[in-house]
Order: sequence, then C-alpha cells, then structure tokens
Amino acid sequence: MEKRERKIMVAIDESEESMYALSWSISNLIADTNNNNKLVLLYVKPPSAVYSLDSAGYIFSNDTIDTLENYSSQLAKSVMKRAEAIYRNFDDTDINIEKVVGTGDAKNVICNAAKKLGADTLVMGSHGYGFIKRALLGSVSDYCVKNAKCPVVIVKQP
Amino acid sequence: MEKRERKIMVAIDESEESMYALSWSISNLIADTNNNNKLVLLYVKPPSAVYSLDSAGYIFSNDTIDTLENYSSQLAKSVMKRAEAIYRNFDDTDINIEKVVGTGDAKNVICNAAKKLGADTLVMGSHGYGFIKRALLGSVSDYCVKNAKCPVVIVKQP
Repeated sequence: MEKRERKIMVAIDESEESMYALSWSISNLIADTNNNNKLVLLYVKPPSAVYSLDSAGYIFSNDTIDTLENYSSQLAKSVMKRAEAIYRNFDDTDINIEKVVGTGDAKNVICNAAKKLGADTLVMGSHGYGFIKRALLGSVSDYCVKNAKCPVVIVKQP
Repeated sequence: MEKRERKIMVAIDESEESMYALSWSISNLIADTNNNNKLVLLYVKPPSAVYSLDSAGYIFSNDTIDTLENYSSQLAKSVMKRAEAIYRNFDDTDINIEKVVGTGDAKNVICNAAKKLGADTLVMGSHGYGFIKRALLGSVSDYCVKNAKCPVVIVKQP
C-alpha cells in the first residue's frame, strides 16, 4: 500500500545546533523507516530592510546594500551546502529533499512555511537564529512551539 | 548489526491531546522503523501534599486523604488503560513498552525521569496537566522544552 507522503521540515541556520537537529531528524524520523518521507530544508534570510539603516541611523549606500544582500545569499548557499554534507553522509541515499529559502522574520517565516507547505513535523534547534535576536525578540523556537499547528521538535546540541 | 535501543518517552495524562501525542509517537518514531525502539509511558500523579489542605485551609481527615489517594491511583490506571488501547491498535504488535508512574510536580518529574531513564526523545502534548495548574505554575511543556536535555516533541491536537 502506498503511504501518504509525510513532510518533515527542518529549519536550519548557521548554528552547529541546527545541523545536529538535521541529523537527528534523518536518524529518527526519516532513515530506516518504511514511510514515504520528504525532508524539507528551510533557511530564512533576514529581511532586506534590516540592512537599510545602520545602528546609528545612517542610510547605507546602494552598493553596501548590494554587498550585504550578496553576503546573505552566499550565507544561505553555505548553510545549504553544510546540510547537504550531512544528509549525504547517511546510507539512506534516496532521501527525498526539497530546499526552501525564505526571507523575513524567522519565526513568522518558519510557521508560515510549515503551514503553506503542509509540514507534518517541524524540527529546529533550541537557539536558532542568533543569541542577540533571541534576547531582543524572544526565542524563535518558543514562538514556533506555541504557534505552529503541527508537532514541533526542539533539539538541543548534547 | 544490532542497533542501540532508543527510548521514546511519552508523558501522558487524562487529556485527549496526550493520547494523540502517543499515537503520533508510535506512527512517527516507532512503527515501521527498523530501529530498536522502546516506548516509555510516563504518568505523573500529583503529590499527596496537594490533598492535605482544602482551598479554605481545612485539613482533610485521613479518610478523605485515603479516598483521594485511591482516586489518584485509579486515574493513573485508567490513563494507562487508554494508552494501551492506543498502542494495541497499531499493527506493529511487538512494541517494547515500559510503564512508569511518578508522583510530584509534573514538570520536574518528567524532566528527571527523562534524564534518569535515559530517554532519547521526550514527547508530550502542549497543554498537559491541566489548564488551571498551567495558569498558576506555567506550562509543563514550556518547562520541559527548556530543561530536558534530550530532543522534546510538542504535539498539539489537530
């Protein structure tokens, strides 16, 4: 019997913890199961608006904005590359993978993406998307636990 | 190759949501995997001290305390029975199960049990252990997400 596809969405960022969350997801939710699983890798870039003013309130030149936008895209690529290295490491070579890059406030983008893409399970690290942002805006993981409709797995690096 | 046993601890209570969390765990973490998984069902009874004073501060008679203790044990049994009905419903009949009943403040008992019994994953509903207690003492699930050392899955009833 063909089973319904299950989507496991993993929110990744630059942190070691999110890479650990990815390998936890593969070991525990995807590899060695007879289920029809799809792994959705989600990376969220900060909104462009963050870059248009510096801390002193000066407006950056267009060149600077371009440089930062470029940096942000490079970062997204580098995080996806690291994620690839992790799932390639698993024997289970036929993992069905989708990569998604969102832009905006991480907690909203993650919850919206989980809903829109129909994630059955959302997995993330406990400290994702930066300590400073966490202190200012509250924890992304706290918000997702409360607001995502699907089960949420919060993974801590051991 | 014999794989290391993985312990999936599910904290259950009287709520529908915790029964849903149990069936989610079996479908997503246990059934149809080739892993060597053990399901640990944890139920936490409130501490006896809760019953020794009523809301007006009167001390209950020993008879009343006995009745309440008895009620609390009956409740534990009834929750375990409901859980049994759920896992028996799965085809995967050879699920390795351990039942644990703890006593005390749910959030501490759950985190301690996860640590002592070496849970690899802790699963629970988002509203476990009562709305009133939640309002007074904060959410059990919030506490466990922050304090348990292992990955924590928070399941909401759809």
